[in-house]
Amino acid sequence: MKLPRSLQNLIDELNKLPGIGLKTAQRLAFYLLRQPQNKLDNLGQAALNLKKSLYFCHKCFNIAETEICEICANSGRDQTMICVVAEALDLLAIEKSGLYQGHYHVLHGLIAPLEGVSPDDLKIAELIKRVKENEISEIILATNPSLEGEATAMFLQKKLEPFSVKITRLAKGLPMGGDIEYADEVTLGNALRGRTVV
Amino acid sequence: MKLPRSLQNLIDELNKLPGIGLKTAQRLAFYLLRQPQNKLDNLGQAALNLKKSLYFCHKCFNIAETEICEICANSGRDQTMICVVAEALDLLAIEKSGLYQGHYHVLHGLIAPLEGVSPDDLKIAELIKRVKENEISEIILATNPSLEGEATAMFLQKKLEPFSVKITRLAKGLPMGGDIEYADEVTLGNALRGRTVV
Repeated sequence: MKLPRSLQNLIDELNKLPGIGLKTAQRLAFYLLRQPQNKLDNLGQAALNLKKSLYFCHKCFNIAETEICEICANSGRDQTMICVVAEALDLLAIEKSGLYQGHYHVLHGLIAPLEGVSPDDLKIAELIKRVKENEISEIILATNPSLEGEATAMFLQKKLEPFSVKITRLAKGLPMGGDIEYADEVTLGNALRGRTVV
Repeated sequence: MKLPRSLQNLIDELNKLPGIGLKTAQRLAFYLLRQPQNKLDNLGQAALNLKKSLYFCHKCFNIAETEICEICANSGRDQTMICVVAEALDLLAIEKSGLYQGHYHVLHGLIAPLEGVSPDDLKIAELIKRVKENEISEIILATNPSLEGEATAMFLQKKLEPFSVKITRLAKGLPMGGDIEYADEVTLGNALRGRTVV
């Protein structure tokens, strides 16, 4: 039996999303089939209108509803600090910790030659420009502790060296609630190397 | 930082789908943010139009683009056999096996008192009516081998007894590619009880 076209259509669209395979797409579509039309309208309109009133901040490339994002517009925050992150989601996570009061710079990706992402595809030139034109005291390279994250941080470090600005990275070590017994060697190595005096 | 409203909106809508938590909803929304508008339009329209040209078959309650579904309308199939399934997805799975040439009846759920699903919420009265008004030779109760599936099958068996029609259930045993060593006791018990002469 062939599925009705509208159903197959939704399954195909859901199946294109990352991490959603055919079975999950089918399950979601059949779930939506049982929902009242107004719920379908809500989801459909939310997808249609997602980017209609969204900007990327002209300064830090964070997502925003205005040309300059909430954080860059906030005069109470430290303009001389820039925390460099790969994605806006990383920025959100750091904001949730409530410990950072400076500005950000969203790269929109990490250098990944195998996936065809070169430094030119990221907002690196814009970062250099910001550092050149403003008084910056510290740049925190807050990229993931992954292969791409480390490579991007190293690349940025090289690029930023001429400006004699303080460059820092996030601490590496055991995560809260972690277990030394089950920690991998690299994490444990980092925890030992970065040990602090009590 | 508060997320832009259109983004938060899509995250909320995705988060309402079964099996999609807040983190997954965020990840999907940020993925969609990076897609061109026409891809968002495709997804949005697919959700909006899902039910606009869909019917439930008047005979078997399968999903269809016409009032009578493809299977019920197919004169080449055996009208005297009814395979009773909980969901249209189960029907699809059985159709894929290519071994069944009769008709279906979709209950749209299983009896689950704890979730407030009573027999009246399912298409059971409609099934009884079909059996009463038509010449039926066999009814296959193809509900899941779960608590709710077994309970629903037992309930249907009682209801269908007066019609002296042959009632069968799907065989229970080891799944293909399964491993006796790792099979649970109930599955192994079923496989032993249902053993066949070679």
